[in-house]
Amino acid sequence: MTFTDQLWQDISPIYESILKHGFVGELTEGALPTAMFQYYIQQDALYLADFSRALSLLAARSVNTDDVLQFTQFAQNAILVERALHETYFALYDIQPGTAKMPACFAYTNFLLATTSLQSVAVGAAAVLPCFWIYREVGKYIYQRAVRENPYHAWIDTYAGEAFDESVNLMLAITDRLADAAGAFEQGLMRDAFRTSSQLEWYFWNDAYTQNRWLV
Amino acid sequence: MTFTDQLWQDISPIYESILKHGFVGELTEGALPTAMFQYYIQQDALYLADFSRALSLLAARSVNTDDVLQFTQFAQNAILVERALHETYFALYDIQPGTAKMPACFAYTNFLLATTSLQSVAVGAAAVLPCFWIYREVGKYIYQRAVRENPYHAWIDTYAGEAFDESVNLMLAITDRLADAAGAFEQGLMRDAFRTSSQLEWYFWNDAYTQNRWLV
Amino acid sequence: MTFTDQLWQDISPIYESILKHGFVGELTEGALPTAMFQYYIQQDALYLADFSRALSLLAARSVNTDDVLQFTQFAQNAILVERALHETYFALYDIQPGTAKMPACFAYTNFLLATTSLQSVAVGAAAVLPCFWIYREVGKYIYQRAVRENPYHAWIDTYAGEAFDESVNLMLAITDRLADAAGAFEQGLMRDAFRTSSQLEWYFWNDAYTQNRWLV
Amino acid sequence: MTFTDQLWQDISPIYESILKHGFVGELTEGALPTAMFQYYIQQDALYLADFSRALSLLAARSVNTDDVLQFTQFAQNAILVERALHETYFALYDIQPGTAKMPACFAYTNFLLATTSLQSVAVGAAAVLPCFWIYREVGKYIYQRAVRENPYHAWIDTYAGEAFDESVNLMLAITDRLADAAGAFEQGLMRDAFRTSSQLEWYFWNDAYTQNRWLV
Repeated sequence: MTFTDQLWQDISPIYESILKHGFVGELTEGALPTAMFQYYIQQDALYLADFSRALSLLAARSVNTDDVLQFTQFAQNAILVERALHETYFALYDIQPGTAKMPACFAYTNFLLATTSLQSVAVGAAAVLPCFWIYREVGKYIYQRAVRENPYHAWIDTYAGEAFDESVNLMLAITDRLADAAGAFEQGLMRDAFRTSSQLEWYFWNDAYTQNRWLV
Repeated sequence: MTFTDQLWQDISPIYESILKHGFVGELTEGALPTAMFQYYIQQDALYLADFSRALSLLAARSVNTDDVLQFTQFAQNAILVERALHETYFALYDIQPGTAKMPACFAYTNFLLATTSLQSVAVGAAAVLPCFWIYREVGKYIYQRAVRENPYHAWIDTYAGEAFDESVNLMLAITDRLADAAGAFEQGLMRDAFRTSSQLEWYFWNDAYTQNRWLV
Repeated sequence: MTFTDQLWQDISPIYESILKHGFVGELTEGALPTAMFQYYIQQDALYLADFSRALSLLAARSVNTDDVLQFTQFAQNAILVERALHETYFALYDIQPGTAKMPACFAYTNFLLATTSLQSVAVGAAAVLPCFWIYREVGKYIYQRAVRENPYHAWIDTYAGEAFDESVNLMLAITDRLADAAGAFEQGLMRDAFRTSSQLEWYFWNDAYTQNRWLV
Repeated sequence: MTFTDQLWQDISPIYESILKHGFVGELTEGALPTAMFQYYIQQDALYLADFSRALSLLAARSVNTDDVLQFTQFAQNAILVERALHETYFALYDIQPGTAKMPACFAYTNFLLATTSLQSVAVGAAAVLPCFWIYREVGKYIYQRAVRENPYHAWIDTYAGEAFDESVNLMLAITDRLADAAGAFEQGLMRDAFRTSSQLEWYFWNDAYTQNRWLV
């Protein structure tokens, strides 16, 4: 069992909760209220900008120049996806650009930035991994089950790309390599970081589903 | 009007919400259920460790050596207060040490760490200021109104110290000085950071009052 | 006069010293001893890896997402140029890959990494600017004067590219924009950082010319 | 053999070079020209401010709160020593406060700041260790051999303090503990960092002895 196999096993209950979440189910069925999808995409654009920053921090702090290059490419791609959301989906689904992160997006992005700034690269890599890996798995799950006449069709199709699949595999290989070089204590921190980001993936969908707003 | 006067004016509605919050009211009256107080102190200990880290980052990034010294002293003091919680209040109020940050503590600490790692020192100073300043004001408010036979008496009394009052004044002076040197755009970021941390102060108390736990 | 015009004026004596340096003169004439060129390219490969890290830090810390994208592209490009050195020039000029930074490369890269980690983005941008700008100007200077039968012909020609010229213009525009938003104190730090990196450009060539090695 | 024993063995030739350096010899004999001592103390004051920043970064990035506290105390102490230089030795030896770091101080401080910002805490700890450990050993060496009628008597005596000895022991214990938790690759980086800082200790004295100035 690879280290990343173990990571996935650790979050098995969280992953099941994500697949069972109303947001995922209704998106698949094409029954998700527009407001929830709009909320989600608007927050996702804000998320991706910080995800790019977190990946840039991993680039800056990697010892190995192959990893520096790989993380700069991931970082660049995250911003290009953010741009694509603005240029395509914001228009397509009538979404207003927002600047205010709602609670789950706020918690998740600050966790990624703090972790990739301050913890080891291995722990930072484990923290950014769920956004690659869970996204791919949930994406495949939705893509395979999505009804044909789905109003979110255009967006769901982007999940099927091979380019993203390849990125996830590269990120998994980096994480396993960093885990191999880490001691047991650092591996424990990697597992904690992976689990925390996986929880926050669930919260990200849940915030959109509940239209969560700040109370003060 | 100084810059910090303006900061306080900005958060006036948030400050009012804090004073009116059930946690503050019941603490003052001595009617707060023990479990809420235990939750609060346990989370506060976890918070203070990261608050110290955030202050150390400001020390590391300050241009002025007076500020380096001041921030190292604040950072050291935050850990000493964390120690005092463990050594005194954990025993006094039968609190179990915890390692899991609940949602508000998690969001707040990661925001402080990300901001003090990545934003300018001026913006980082504005982010750490509410924990000094709101705490002093709420502390005075509670201290002045607290009933005599209050089970939280020992803890409330710590609010009355002059040492803490002096720290807050020093932190206000640093913030005003940094704001004076900042351009309008950076001042805007300072105001955003101050407001965000002030919101998170409310959430910190609210999490204890609602015994908030992670949903997954 | 733009802010960057002023930066250039500040370093006018340093720039003159670079143009008059034996390394630049002998490179232009094709008379530079091979060992000096080998030393230079080997150190340049080590430099570029850290230059990429410094640019990634600026990406991570930029508030504006256009700047995040731009800095990730610069960061990626620096690694691609480092790769090109290894794949093309190391073979062409019989250069051994090295892992030990010599004094000038060591001082320069650590200055860039420390500055982009800890100072404001504006100051960090001023620190990375000389590697773009002085390189372009010196490159043009050498290209225009280089003798035809120059053993370093292949390498000198890369200076003539429009892509690099465009990058320098983008970096100048970012620096001017960040300076406009900065207060006078921060602008002073930007000027210091620009001057320091410009000095280190001179030292970088001088180390190659003198085959400088660590004394202990 | 502990990890730190191995570190010391690694730098044995560098340590011998330091003991044999003219600066150390002439300081011990009281024959060091005043200008060299002035240069050294002035640069040391600039060094200590950044040494404090580097220690604050280690505080900020330590997982263990005991280490956070210890590093904040080291960081605070470094600034207090810097203050003492200004208040006592600058007057006593007629030293002008300076703001310009000379080459060795520049290289060393930027290395410490870049390493403690970006590398793991274990590697950062190895980088700051020589300033504790070599200083103590060289200090003892000078103290035991110094002539009585030494014009640098007041300064040399500060080496004899038990407080500093205790700090060094604490720093050695932290380094050994971090090394125990590190994998082989990270231990290799620790050894590199320790050796590099040790070299830079030699350069720091050598710059004072040669009154080294920037060439451009």
